[in-house]
Amino acid sequence: MGLHIVVLAAGKGKRMRSALPKVLQPLGDRPLLKHVVEAAQTLDPEQIHVVYGHGAEQVQSALGYLEVNWVYQHQQLGTGHAVSQAIDDVPNDASVLVLYGDVPLVRAATLSHLVDAAATDALALLTVVLDDPAGYGRIRRDDENRVVGIVEDKDASGDERYIREVNTGLICAQARHLRDWLSRLTNENTQGEYYLTDCIAMAAGDGVQIVAGQAGSVEETQGINDKRDLATAERLLQRRQAEALMDQGLTLRDPERFDLRGSLRVGRDCLVDVNAVIEGEVVLGEGVHIGPHCVLRNCTIGDHTQVLSHTVIEHAGVGARCQIGPFARLRPDTELADRAKIGNFVETKKLKLGAGSKINHLSYVGDAVVGANVNIGAGVITCNYDGANKHVTTIGDDAFIGSDCQLVAPVTVERGATIGAGTTLTKTAPPDTLTLSRSKQFSIDGWKRPRKNNPGHS
Amino acid sequence: MGLHIVVLAAGKGKRMRSALPKVLQPLGDRPLLKHVVEAAQTLDPEQIHVVYGHGAEQVQSALGYLEVNWVYQHQQLGTGHAVSQAIDDVPNDASVLVLYGDVPLVRAATLSHLVDAAATDALALLTVVLDDPAGYGRIRRDDENRVVGIVEDKDASGDERYIREVNTGLICAQARHLRDWLSRLTNENTQGEYYLTDCIAMAAGDGVQIVAGQAGSVEETQGINDKRDLATAERLLQRRQAEALMDQGLTLRDPERFDLRGSLRVGRDCLVDVNAVIEGEVVLGEGVHIGPHCVLRNCTIGDHTQVLSHTVIEHAGVGARCQIGPFARLRPDTELADRAKIGNFVETKKLKLGAGSKINHLSYVGDAVVGANVNIGAGVITCNYDGANKHVTTIGDDAFIGSDCQLVAPVTVERGATIGAGTTLTKTAPPDTLTLSRSKQFSIDGWKRPRKNNPGHS
Amino acid sequence: MGLHIVVLAAGKGKRMRSALPKVLQPLGDRPLLKHVVEAAQTLDPEQIHVVYGHGAEQVQSALGYLEVNWVYQHQQLGTGHAVSQAIDDVPNDASVLVLYGDVPLVRAATLSHLVDAAATDALALLTVVLDDPAGYGRIRRDDENRVVGIVEDKDASGDERYIREVNTGLICAQARHLRDWLSRLTNENTQGEYYLTDCIAMAAGDGVQIVAGQAGSVEETQGINDKRDLATAERLLQRRQAEALMDQGLTLRDPERFDLRGSLRVGRDCLVDVNAVIEGEVVLGEGVHIGPHCVLRNCTIGDHTQVLSHTVIEHAGVGARCQIGPFARLRPDTELADRAKIGNFVETKKLKLGAGSKINHLSYVGDAVVGANVNIGAGVITCNYDGANKHVTTIGDDAFIGSDCQLVAPVTVERGATIGAGTTLTKTAPPDTLTLSRSKQFSIDGWKRPRKNNPGHS
Repeated sequence: MGLHIVVLAAGKGKRMRSALPKVLQPLGDRPLLKHVVEAAQTLDPEQIHVVYGHGAEQVQSALGYLEVNWVYQHQQLGTGHAVSQAIDDVPNDASVLVLYGDVPLVRAATLSHLVDAAATDALALLTVVLDDPAGYGRIRRDDENRVVGIVEDKDASGDERYIREVNTGLICAQARHLRDWLSRLTNENTQGEYYLTDCIAMAAGDGVQIVAGQAGSVEETQGINDKRDLATAERLLQRRQAEALMDQGLTLRDPERFDLRGSLRVGRDCLVDVNAVIEGEVVLGEGVHIGPHCVLRNCTIGDHTQVLSHTVIEHAGVGARCQIGPFARLRPDTELADRAKIGNFVETKKLKLGAGSKINHLSYVGDAVVGANVNIGAGVITCNYDGANKHVTTIGDDAFIGSDCQLVAPVTVERGATIGAGTTLTKTAPPDTLTLSRSKQFSIDGWKRPRKNNPGHS
Repeated sequence: MGLHIVVLAAGKGKRMRSALPKVLQPLGDRPLLKHVVEAAQTLDPEQIHVVYGHGAEQVQSALGYLEVNWVYQHQQLGTGHAVSQAIDDVPNDASVLVLYGDVPLVRAATLSHLVDAAATDALALLTVVLDDPAGYGRIRRDDENRVVGIVEDKDASGDERYIREVNTGLICAQARHLRDWLSRLTNENTQGEYYLTDCIAMAAGDGVQIVAGQAGSVEETQGINDKRDLATAERLLQRRQAEALMDQGLTLRDPERFDLRGSLRVGRDCLVDVNAVIEGEVVLGEGVHIGPHCVLRNCTIGDHTQVLSHTVIEHAGVGARCQIGPFARLRPDTELADRAKIGNFVETKKLKLGAGSKINHLSYVGDAVVGANVNIGAGVITCNYDGANKHVTTIGDDAFIGSDCQLVAPVTVERGATIGAGTTLTKTAPPDTLTLSRSKQFSIDGWKRPRKNNPGHS
Repeated sequence: MGLHIVVLAAGKGKRMRSALPKVLQPLGDRPLLKHVVEAAQTLDPEQIHVVYGHGAEQVQSALGYLEVNWVYQHQQLGTGHAVSQAIDDVPNDASVLVLYGDVPLVRAATLSHLVDAAATDALALLTVVLDDPAGYGRIRRDDENRVVGIVEDKDASGDERYIREVNTGLICAQARHLRDWLSRLTNENTQGEYYLTDCIAMAAGDGVQIVAGQAGSVEETQGINDKRDLATAERLLQRRQAEALMDQGLTLRDPERFDLRGSLRVGRDCLVDVNAVIEGEVVLGEGVHIGPHCVLRNCTIGDHTQVLSHTVIEHAGVGARCQIGPFARLRPDTELADRAKIGNFVETKKLKLGAGSKINHLSYVGDAVVGANVNIGAGVITCNYDGANKHVTTIGDDAFIGSDCQLVAPVTVERGATIGAGTTLTKTAPPDTLTLSRSKQFSIDGWKRPRKNNPGHS
């Protein structure tokens, strides 16, 4: 009485015009097939069987880690043939739900209803009502609204053509029925393929009850066949995710300009301005404000922190009440304590920055451990790389690094030290005093600035 | 015969899932309630009464400066109860217009028509025609198209359910009528609330004429209840603003990617490229071009100036025929004369820059007064902060500051002076000659570059 | 029997509120008129005649290079008058297709059908079916569905008002007919203009067959009259271009946030993330990935190169497997060999960068020839400009330039040389050793950092 799910994922997707098999095309940065398997997993099935074929190596390389039964289909001979490849691995008393690796937006609740509908020995099929049903198999119902069969588009009579409820191809049935029907399929049709859909007529012939569950929206059942479909699905996914976040209280200035490719957790009263791109796992505390045109990837942002426009943060942790950006870039292993401030044109990497410390302008601070209440001036650079190895810069609390200094690592600035502007620091700067390297300023009498020696625009 | 306007603004807005009361939620960066009060003010009423309750302190703190009569509602017992809190402050011979703090997009012209319709002793109510009227009170009309009442959704008969004209809740009536009706309201309904809508039946019973004014668009009458509604209203507001600006001649590459949170005045033949975010008061002269992905806040841009992509300007004045960006950031109190040029990765602040002067690359110039035709090289930094105080850098006309100089303020570069690359300038640079600080270049015989001492990727 | 095309382009476009004549308003960064002439050119006509008038000098200055017969219309007296200005230049045995300079989205295939329809001595007119035909001339057809005339909106009878097929104004007819009809036009109407449309009634009167070709979509026939129309057309053009590219296999994260103002060629498996703005001629190799919020102008990007977010590239060539950005700006004449890397806040210009070389942080490298496997540290600046002339920096293979160096051009760093951090390099750095300029580091005993001498926030 367990549930087995068969996912058909063997197609090439020629219309994608891609070296990547169709089911690996990215939607929200995850392969289409992964979306389907994730939806399947929510049903807690005994087993998920993925029938794959085209691009088998690529599929295995990308998704081989999924806990599914991989069934290799040598030749693609139709949907019925594909399901039959997996059916031997399914016990007779199980239910079988058939999904498609290129129909990624189907909702778990929809599938759950379909499985429930099939529980009483029925064949359950998912239908959807289209404004324009041309090209699809129409659902025929009797006077009591019971499904009695499907009529293919080309066979539809005048009246039948106006039926707007169509078959999506997603079905659920008892394994023992399905095994029987599959064994009786023929490929005597113009495509020479074995169609899973033909099982429906067999069910009707066998007196098996046919139950149609309607999908909540057309988008759930849309197959992805080309890059236009893929883009359409991307926007549907994004819209769905944006709505879920708004329902949790997130303020989005424009849900149509919001891209989440992973997971986002938000505290109360967060605001995400236009054009955010959020990848991996991102967590925002309470009252976090993300400015326009930012990219966040695998990061945690503390309560009431302001991320100003045009900021890129990846694999970083930001404390509470910080201010970041605009035009800041926090690279991996940046850890900012509370009330830290990172300003414009500043890059950080492997930086531990203490509470209340500031790097406001045009600096690169990497491989550094910096204390609290430190002020790092404009144009400061940690020279962490000697051409072969990376070295660490250490700066104590309350230090002040003048503008345009180079801190040649490994080097230490002790607590309370001040470094004069333009210094190349190569040795420890002692605490609570001024350290610098500086040449004498002089002027050259009689010097004349060069004149342009070629006409025209330089 | 004067007009009093009552704005109902006491609700919590639980579905917002926010610590902020609903009427303070931001739309175009202004609280919802402010939009409603501004619309009310266009009618030049004798008094605006705002009935507030939830989040009273926050409301007062954010909007207490508004010139309205604040009426505190201790308990929220329904719309009728809310209006009755304010009615004592309204003289009998006035008209009363009832608005809602969470219906922010209603147009002044619509309200004006409603007030006019109520002038002849009638009860005027604003209706709107919905594609799907389910859930709303339907407007019943007689054979001569006169409004005869409202039928609530749950009471609507078969035919009445198909009526698509519905009640919005916005009404206008004479104070003496309204006072009477409010006094007769009961809370004998499932919610136990006093409903303002019940006044309409009383008006009909009293033989008072009921006049329905239809809103020009559904958007005007939409209430904001959750973050989805808020986002929808934000886009409607933005679209409305964009259209008004296009009607003035502004070229927008994409009206759907334009955010104005404040006011924008534009001269002839301005073009704003995609994804501009404009905040506060911004004024563009003639022929100004704003590139993609820019943020402008409280600034004035002169004629024929080009702002290139990814530029952030705040509280600054930019002259005519300047070129700014890409990746420029003008911070507060930047004043650029005509034909100035600010290039990529340049930050300015409290800068007065003369005509034709250039800061093209990777510089921070703050607390500075710079003359005309000055060329500031790449990587130049004004060291304006000594850890305690800010100091001024002064640069005369025609000066040339070599790359990577630090100007340690207070310091002066005199007219026509040239500063050599890499100089730390601490004293006045005399006019018309070269000043520099520089160490001798030398090479170390036999030196070998370090080799990687750990395998793997550095 | 040849084809002549007359483009009407004399209107002012007052509602544009612009100093630019209407036909020069930009769509995809090209004047409206240019779109129409390009569509006309696809038909390989014997001659294109452009009737121009308002803003004649501007039109000539912007588009005078087009290979068309420019016909100056001194006074704008109506569409019929405009065509008559050009008809003398057309031989009697030609076909004449009339287009409009402000109807820029008409498809070549649509025009081709129209020309074919007119080939058999008929008058062919382009019609379109509108949801709301109010204001347009309706197409009257007889019982056999043949066009018998046009009825103007104001003359339409009750039934005729419901006709949704309307006239677009685009027609094709034999020159000898058209010459005759034009000579018989009068301006006896409320506008006092000579209407080309009146030729249709004459054709019917003369027994000339009238053939209507329906446009594939409404957008093809939309005239541009104001900045709202212009923005609508811009988005339609962009959508059309995006779809064509997706059909070639390009992955677009959001086709609604993609702007192509020129031409884009893409190899297999390219992905363009949100908000790309692409101008001029851009070519992407195979597997190129363009991150969010980038601007590309006239550039070529090699196979498998990654362009990260917030990058601006113009007039540059980028090799294969490079990584550029985020926040990089490649200015004109940047040429990157394979596997080069340009990081954040880096500006390049007239740079030839060898294979595998890196400029990762906060640098300006211009007028430079750099070898392979060179590492340029953070904050490095080529001082290419002496205030009058530009000079070249030359860096050999395997060199390592320490952070914050100034390379005062003309200067050479020889192969394998290392330059110490903070060096001002003014003379050749010899190969395979360390060159630097550096002052001694010292500390000042007893020095105290200044204290704030004014209260408040600095």
